Amino acid sequence: MSDDASKPSTNSDPRTHGLDAIFNPGSIAVIGASSNKLKIGGRPLHHLISYGYEGNVYPINPQHDVVQGVPAYPSLESLPEVPDLAIVAVPGGAVLKAVRECAEHGVKAVVLFSAGFAEIGEAGRRAQAELAMIAEESGMRIVGPNCIGAARMSTGVTPTFAAAIMLPRERPIRDVPHIALVSQSGAIGGHLVALAPDRGFEFDPWITTGNESDVDTADAIAYFAEQDYVSAIAVYIEGSSNGEALRKALSLARRAGKPIIILKSGVSEVGASAVASHTASLVGSDDVYDALFLQYGATRVHSVRDLLDTSYLLATGKVPAGSRVGLLTGSGGAGILMADAAAATALDVSPLPETVQAQLKKLWPPAGVANPIDMTAQVTNDPDLFASFLEAVITGAEYDTLLIWLSYLGMIEPWAGTITEALRRVRAAHPEANIIVSSMTNADSAQAFREMNIPVFDELSDMIQTAARMVRIGEMLRAPLADELIPAAGLPVIDPSATLTEDQAKLVLTEVGIPTVPDRLVTSASAARQAAEEFGYPVVLKIVSVDLPHKSEVGGVVLSIQDGDAVEAAYGRIMTGVSAAAPEARISGIIVAPMIAGGVETILGIKNDPALGMTVAVGLGGVFVEVLQDVVLRLAPFDIATAMEMIRELRGFELLDGARGTEPADINALANALSALSHFAAANASTIESIDINPFVVLPHGRGAYALDAFISPLSAQPH
Amino acid sequence: MSDDASKPSTNSDPRTHGLDAIFNPGSIAVIGASSNKLKIGGRPLHHLISYGYEGNVYPINPQHDVVQGVPAYPSLESLPEVPDLAIVAVPGGAVLKAVRECAEHGVKAVVLFSAGFAEIGEAGRRAQAELAMIAEESGMRIVGPNCIGAARMSTGVTPTFAAAIMLPRERPIRDVPHIALVSQSGAIGGHLVALAPDRGFEFDPWITTGNESDVDTADAIAYFAEQDYVSAIAVYIEGSSNGEALRKALSLARRAGKPIIILKSGVSEVGASAVASHTASLVGSDDVYDALFLQYGATRVHSVRDLLDTSYLLATGKVPAGSRVGLLTGSGGAGILMADAAAATALDVSPLPETVQAQLKKLWPPAGVANPIDMTAQVTNDPDLFASFLEAVITGAEYDTLLIWLSYLGMIEPWAGTITEALRRVRAAHPEANIIVSSMTNADSAQAFREMNIPVFDELSDMIQTAARMVRIGEMLRAPLADELIPAAGLPVIDPSATLTEDQAKLVLTEVGIPTVPDRLVTSASAARQAAEEFGYPVVLKIVSVDLPHKSEVGGVVLSIQDGDAVEAAYGRIMTGVSAAAPEARISGIIVAPMIAGGVETILGIKNDPALGMTVAVGLGGVFVEVLQDVVLRLAPFDIATAMEMIRELRGFELLDGARGTEPADINALANALSALSHFAAANASTIESIDINPFVVLPHGRGAYALDAFISPLSAQPH
Repeated sequence: MSDDASKPSTNSDPRTHGLDAIFNPGSIAVIGASSNKLKIGGRPLHHLISYGYEGNVYPINPQHDVVQGVPAYPSLESLPEVPDLAIVAVPGGAVLKAVRECAEHGVKAVVLFSAGFAEIGEAGRRAQAELAMIAEESGMRIVGPNCIGAARMSTGVTPTFAAAIMLPRERPIRDVPHIALVSQSGAIGGHLVALAPDRGFEFDPWITTGNESDVDTADAIAYFAEQDYVSAIAVYIEGSSNGEALRKALSLARRAGKPIIILKSGVSEVGASAVASHTASLVGSDDVYDALFLQYGATRVHSVRDLLDTSYLLATGKVPAGSRVGLLTGSGGAGILMADAAAATALDVSPLPETVQAQLKKLWPPAGVANPIDMTAQVTNDPDLFASFLEAVITGAEYDTLLIWLSYLGMIEPWAGTITEALRRVRAAHPEANIIVSSMTNADSAQAFREMNIPVFDELSDMIQTAARMVRIGEMLRAPLADELIPAAGLPVIDPSATLTEDQAKLVLTEVGIPTVPDRLVTSASAARQAAEEFGYPVVLKIVSVDLPHKSEVGGVVLSIQDGDAVEAAYGRIMTGVSAAAPEARISGIIVAPMIAGGVETILGIKNDPALGMTVAVGLGGVFVEVLQDVVLRLAPFDIATAMEMIRELRGFELLDGARGTEPADINALANALSALSHFAAANASTIESIDINPFVVLPHGRGAYALDAFISPLSAQPH
Repeated sequence: MSDDASKPSTNSDPRTHGLDAIFNPGSIAVIGASSNKLKIGGRPLHHLISYGYEGNVYPINPQHDVVQGVPAYPSLESLPEVPDLAIVAVPGGAVLKAVRECAEHGVKAVVLFSAGFAEIGEAGRRAQAELAMIAEESGMRIVGPNCIGAARMSTGVTPTFAAAIMLPRERPIRDVPHIALVSQSGAIGGHLVALAPDRGFEFDPWITTGNESDVDTADAIAYFAEQDYVSAIAVYIEGSSNGEALRKALSLARRAGKPIIILKSGVSEVGASAVASHTASLVGSDDVYDALFLQYGATRVHSVRDLLDTSYLLATGKVPAGSRVGLLTGSGGAGILMADAAAATALDVSPLPETVQAQLKKLWPPAGVANPIDMTAQVTNDPDLFASFLEAVITGAEYDTLLIWLSYLGMIEPWAGTITEALRRVRAAHPEANIIVSSMTNADSAQAFREMNIPVFDELSDMIQTAARMVRIGEMLRAPLADELIPAAGLPVIDPSATLTEDQAKLVLTEVGIPTVPDRLVTSASAARQAAEEFGYPVVLKIVSVDLPHKSEVGGVVLSIQDGDAVEAAYGRIMTGVSAAAPEARISGIIVAPMIAGGVETILGIKNDPALGMTVAVGLGGVFVEVLQDVVLRLAPFDIATAMEMIRELRGFELLDGARGTEPADINALANALSALSHFAAANASTIESIDINPFVVLPHGRGAYALDAFISPLSAQPH
């Protein structure tokens, strides 16, 4: 029925291996098939029949010869062939046995609906682990448990019990681009599948991954990214227990030029703890997901509606070439609201060319003709006015998107008819114009908008925000792709069981390309004085001990020492003070280092996220990081261009760029260090828990940057 | 037909005087009445007939004896009585004449639809000024021009040409609270009027004020605030040219316990410039509107949908007693999304009591029973489960609002039927329970929800955000009302034509209760030394000149002077430097003042907003104000409690409250100064353009706060 559904995917990546058996099977068995099409065992069979799946369907039910009019079989082994896909719709207790039989008979994939696995506690976790084991040993892929299945709507492959697709509705009337959907939650997936047809599109293919005993969100994204017929992927995710796979899947989609729209829940504390109890997995920090999505060009949204709206525009609209928008209305007030909404995004509301303004003024002198363009209420009196304005704006201005607000005119006759008629004329002359409308509609006008390929939104602000998201998607698609970043080789890997002192940590960091302030470890007052003389004054003295990560708290730091006598005195004071405060501490000596004057204090750090892995942070020191949490994250490793991007995203960036009358700081040095740190982090993903470089002082342009202090926390030292 | 529509309003305030003739007229003339009910002159008459207005209706049309079945008259003077209200639906050129005639005959109010007045340029502005003059001289109230009129739906008073109310639809089936609507824009007003019935309520009464030649937004709000039958007021506003009236109207509504929901456009630069060209009036800064709304407990929203949703909940839901919410779903994923959305608001998602948790676990062991409460997909299999969970949660937990997400279950049978049936049972047992549902609906279930008084939202995040807005509205309604603040009497009023030097400005501020650092104006080096000796070191020296507001730029400031010789040297250096840099400047001398050590730098200021008047600001110094624009505003005058509220709203507040290990600052002293400044500002609303007190140093608790510098800019000195 559709384009190239029969084309096999490349299956080059082992993660996506076998998913073709779910979306493109030659035969499907329904284990536990029921005659009642409302029951969980009856719905998948009903869907396969009513959606016209053309492969072989085998209901398995020992009680009946025929189920829903299809010849049934008593068992898997009695089938005339080994099915590619088996839908397991048996009660919870019988699931494991059925799945094991499928694996033994060589079934390629199974879809499991039952709840009662990892989400309910220890016994369920054990049963789920067994499912995972069967999948791993046999190579058979398992979707679920605790999901509502999957579907390839256009070929009738419907291994799902979703009531959503039982809704009476028209199938989409046009061959719109295929928007795939991956949802970890069955209910949210079903909800989106149910709502899309009202907007004139459908998600196809779609999958809900549930407890992810085997097939997970990352597998599904990667598989869809590889399918030529899929043009974009919508995702609902609560968390990933395999961050590396998720990262690869997002990268794959990005390289395939397929936009990803992602709704990630668990943003809040209550939400995150609900995720933890719901999915029983480590889900990582929400901030790190944000960084991941940004890094791989995935568009994050924050509500079900935004996910649906963006998918809708990807299915029925156009990806604009730029951010210039024309705002057209019959209401001054709506024009202002549109301009406000646009200003909150990256949309560019620039005025019409003077010649076009003059042209419009001639058509209707009271019109507002800059941008927003206000046709005034005259648009309800003179249907030709609307078409003439549209024509003039489309031909005379270079807007990438034309956004039109028509209130309820599309709902009430005679206006609905005259408005759609005017649009039809303009559409015929400009089939490629990127037009989006906000209007209430009636059945006729909704149909007319669909036929004209003009997306329609009820609400003005949804139209603007979704149009802005399309602009960002376009920018992402046009952005040059960096080479796939290969972690730098030959970097030192630290011993995860050792504790490094400050001087040792700085030595390692220097070695990997992060400049540190020169220093010397000394063990006598006279050696301290000698080191200070060589560095030049002022200097700083700091205690060095594996047992004292918080040096200041034990009196272990003296700053701004101005001469040799003061150095010797400080040496003695530190030693006496520390012995008194921490008599058990093992002391390696004292570091002498020159004081660095001026510069902007930043903080560099890495943290090993339990789900997503090595995360690198940059922040501005002082109130920015302490009060405002002004920190930007990315996953390691990344290149210098990405590091520069991070620095520019800091809210206090202007403190670094010299905008406030100060000298511009050496942000090249900062970016180099940040990228170097990310490579070191990647090389130590299994050995380091965290690194804090605080402060990392960035001197004026051309004078470099220096770590003044550093602390490396090995993985084994942390309660993990 | 309705409650107490015939009750006259008190009309105590001259601003609302005469508006009864618009919403409660005994007779209405339609000047320019047309037989074609689609024409602007035909629609109001059609509405009056079809909505069953019971007073006398007089179509005026010299060409016809009968218009739309109603006996017509050739002119105003041929009518059997002077109508209370006249609808003027004649072409633009004939408007002024018709309005003048109405005034001469003693008509109490007219409604004018025509565009082509102040919004189109100078000629239009002149015509509009004439309308304003007629209104002022005659006392006749004028609605418009350039509006779509007004209506009191429930008594059929419909002086409007809105097509919106021609839509075929059911009138609301219940006696829901009356939500009034005031919209400056005709189109936005009509849009809201058109959309409300789909949600099972209607705006009643409503008015669009258009160009506001006479009746403006503030008049309408004040009038509605005085009507007993109105329970809340929704407002769309672009700007007010009479800030004082708007402030009084908001205050009146607040004192009457009527929530105001307000959509103010012109937030962005493009938006604001569109407002300016659209309404041709000074509209003031958007930040100041924010402060105004906050100060008077009005709830600001930022989209048409939010205005509609909040009005909907005010009409059909309940104002909750507190912020505790129970989140109930059949989906773990939706529960997380609800928790996330709630966490972004002030809603309190606290867990169910243990006993109720145990009860629910007994009902369905796999359920999630903390909060969010996840009934799992079992809710689709067992309709009794839903009712039992609801019953247990309502009786066992003390949630102020119960929020339920049901996806598309309300749309598809048999679930829609079983779900609404379960709710009906619970509703019968708990008529007062505050229940809100998010579900898609079909016609039957939508009707069922209406009958049960259970508001329904399509989108989960709208439900949560609107519920949170209701909580804030409840808090506002319960908050104790401060006495109407009377500006302090006897405060100095400065001469608007004078320019004050720093020492003069500080003297005035000290007088009104704003502590300033002690200082002395000297005119010789030796006097400077003597002053310094008396204050004690270190001291600061600053040039004093009416011509030099920016002292540092001309070398006019020396800080941290440690002894007498240095004072004399600094005196000489400043005098020499300033003479060289600004030889023309008139020099009063040099100020000597002690250096204040420590403390937190803040900035206090006032600005005279062109539309809303005297605005007082407090900000934190340094990067907070410079980089982050961390400033909080209120309109003057205000009390110390409000000042304290402002201080707590600062993003960097923790720098003042000692949370970061520093001593808590003397925020009482800061609040006192801020409130004192606001009273001084109010007393000088017609003399001062702005005041900058920068820095205003707040010392540790109990040690006070001091203005170190101050600049007062009189109104006449500014290009205004």
